Amino acid sequence: MRIAVDAMGGDHAPQQIVEGAVLAAREYDYRIVLVGDQNLLRSELEKYKDVPSSITIHHAGSFVRMDESAAISIRKKKDASVSICADLIKEGVVDAMVTAGHTGAAVVACTLKLRLLEGVERPGIAIALPTLGENPTILIDVGANIDTKPTHLYQYALMGDVYFRYILRKNRPSVGILNIGEEETKGTEYIKEAHQLLNKSRLHFVGNVEGRDIFNGKVDIVVCDGFVGNVVLKVSESIAGVIGKLLKAELKRSPLTMLGALLAKPAFDALKREIDYSEYGGAPLLGVDGNCIISHGSSNAKAIKNAIRRAAEFVKYEINQHILEAIRLNAE
Amino acid sequence: MRIAVDAMGGDHAPQQIVEGAVLAAREYDYRIVLVGDQNLLRSELEKYKDVPSSITIHHAGSFVRMDESAAISIRKKKDASVSICADLIKEGVVDAMVTAGHTGAAVVACTLKLRLLEGVERPGIAIALPTLGENPTILIDVGANIDTKPTHLYQYALMGDVYFRYILRKNRPSVGILNIGEEETKGTEYIKEAHQLLNKSRLHFVGNVEGRDIFNGKVDIVVCDGFVGNVVLKVSESIAGVIGKLLKAELKRSPLTMLGALLAKPAFDALKREIDYSEYGGAPLLGVDGNCIISHGSSNAKAIKNAIRRAAEFVKYEINQHILEAIRLNAE
Repeated sequence: MRIAVDAMGGDHAPQQIVEGAVLAAREYDYRIVLVGDQNLLRSELEKYKDVPSSITIHHAGSFVRMDESAAISIRKKKDASVSICADLIKEGVVDAMVTAGHTGAAVVACTLKLRLLEGVERPGIAIALPTLGENPTILIDVGANIDTKPTHLYQYALMGDVYFRYILRKNRPSVGILNIGEEETKGTEYIKEAHQLLNKSRLHFVGNVEGRDIFNGKVDIVVCDGFVGNVVLKVSESIAGVIGKLLKAELKRSPLTMLGALLAKPAFDALKREIDYSEYGGAPLLGVDGNCIISHGSSNAKAIKNAIRRAAEFVKYEINQHILEAIRLNAE
Repeated sequence: MRIAVDAMGGDHAPQQIVEGAVLAAREYDYRIVLVGDQNLLRSELEKYKDVPSSITIHHAGSFVRMDESAAISIRKKKDASVSICADLIKEGVVDAMVTAGHTGAAVVACTLKLRLLEGVERPGIAIALPTLGENPTILIDVGANIDTKPTHLYQYALMGDVYFRYILRKNRPSVGILNIGEEETKGTEYIKEAHQLLNKSRLHFVGNVEGRDIFNGKVDIVVCDGFVGNVVLKVSESIAGVIGKLLKAELKRSPLTMLGALLAKPAFDALKREIDYSEYGGAPLLGVDGNCIISHGSSNAKAIKNAIRRAAEFVKYEINQHILEAIRLNAE
C-alpha cells in the first residue's frame, strides 16, 4: 500500500501533516510519499527520531494557497503539491492520496488528471457525520459540484451506498434526498426528477429527508447539491463551537457551576471526541478514477493519520471497482 | 392594535395558542381575535379565569393540516383558519396576524390575498438566530421561495435591513450573501449577479459569507435561497438537540459527572434560554402587503405571546411603509 500525502496542504502544514504521516507509518504497514518542498520536508522529518524508512519525500515546487482560484492555480502551477499527488496516482507510483489543502484544487486536479469513473458525470465529496444513531450519516456532496443535475444525485446515491457497505460495513444502507419537506411533491424540479430515478433503482431509497434527519440517525446516506451540502457542513461545524462557547460563558458565572463543570469534564471530553472531525478519517472524493481522501483544512496529526488509514481502506476494499459494478448493475 | 391569531395552527394547537393569546392580552394592550373552530375555542377559553375582554373569537370552518399541499388546500378550503386571518387583514378588521401552522399555507394565503408590496417580486421569511455577537443574525429566506433570482436576494437584503433597523434597532446593519466561499468569483451564477446588485446598492454590503458566519455574529443579515435557508434552519435546530442528548448520555456515565451536571444545571438552563426559539418572537413573512408573523410549529404559549408582541411591533414601526421607501430609494 503506497499513499501520497500532500504535505503542503492545510492550516497546519507541513508540521501536523508530516507528524500524521510519521504516526501512520509507525502504526501501519504503508509506504508513504510526502509531497512538497523537499528541503522543508527534510528538516521537518529531522525532528523525529527513528523515522520509518517507509516514508519518502517527493519534491513539489509549489502549492495552492487557500485564497487562490482552484481552476486557475491547477492550470498554472503544474508542480503544485496536490497536482503532483494526482500525477503519482496516474503514473501508478502510489495507490491513493490524502490532502488537507484547498478542496477545490483537489477536486480540479483529480478530475483533470485521473478523469471520472465510467458512468459518473460529476465527482462528489462524501463526509461521515456523527449522529444519535448507531452509525454516522454520510452526506454527499459537500462541495465538489454546485451545478447539480438529477443524474448526479442518483450517482451520488450509488457511490454513497458502496462507501457505506464496504467501509462502514452496513448492508442495504438507506438513502434519502435532502429536501425542504418529506412529501414527494416538495422541492425543486431537479430533486423531483432525482426522486423518480432513485425510486426505480435497486437502492434502499426512503424518499425525501429534511435538514433535521442528517444528525438524528434516521437515514444512512443523504444526497444533495454541493452548495447545500457545503453550507450544511460549515453551519454544523460552527454550531458545535458556538454552543460550546456559550456554555463555557454560562458555566463561569458562579463557583458552583464552575465546580459542576469541573466534575462533568470527563463527559464534556467524551462528547468532544464523539463529534471530533479528526476521528472520522477525512472525506473521500468519490467518482474519480483514483483514490483521494480530502481531510479537514484544520487537520491535526491524528486527523491526517486517520485519513491515511481511510485512504488505504478505499484501496483495499476496491471501492472504485464496486462503484463501476453498481453503476453497471443499476443501468441494466 | 388588533391581531388575528390562527388558533388552529401548530403542533400544540389550540391549547398553547389560546394560552399564548391570553398571556398577551393580559400583558399588552392589544385586541386579539382567535381564529378557528368557535366551539373548540370557546371551551378552551373557559379554562381561564378572567379572560380579558380584548380577546374575541372569529369562526373558521376548517384548517390546513401539516401534511397537506399548501397551494391546493388554500384554494379548496376557503374557510381555513389561516386564510381567514389573511382575510381579516385585507378587510381592515385586524392589523396583523400570527400563525404557527403550515408555513407554506401561510405564505400562499398571504401572497394570494394580501398581494406583494410594490417592487417586491417574492416574499421571504426572515428568522432571527442567536449568535456569539451582541445581536442575532437575520437569515432570509428560510423557505417562502425556492425559485430564487438575483433580484429576490437583493430585495431580501433591503427588507432585512429595514427589519434590523426598526425592530432590532441597529443602524446600518451589515448584509452578506450566503455562499460556499468568500471570494467574489465563488458560487452559482445567480449569486454572482446578486453580488453585483448589492454592490451598487446603498446597503452596508460585506460580500459573501459562509455557513459558519451565521452563528458567529460576523454579519447582521444573511440572504439566501429559501431552499438553503430552510435546510440551514432545520439542521441548526436539530444539532442543538443532538448535542444536548449526547451530552446527557455522557453525563450519566458516572456519579461524579452526574453531580457535576446537577451543579452546572443553572448554566445549562441559561444556555437553553439563550438558544430557545420561543424567546425570538417568530419570523415575519416580509414582502406581503400586510403583517404576518410565522411562529415555530412547536410553539408553546410563550412563543405565541412573543410572536403576538412581534406582530404588534411590525405594525407600530410601519415596517411595510419603510420597505416601500427603501425600494423606491434604492431604485433611484
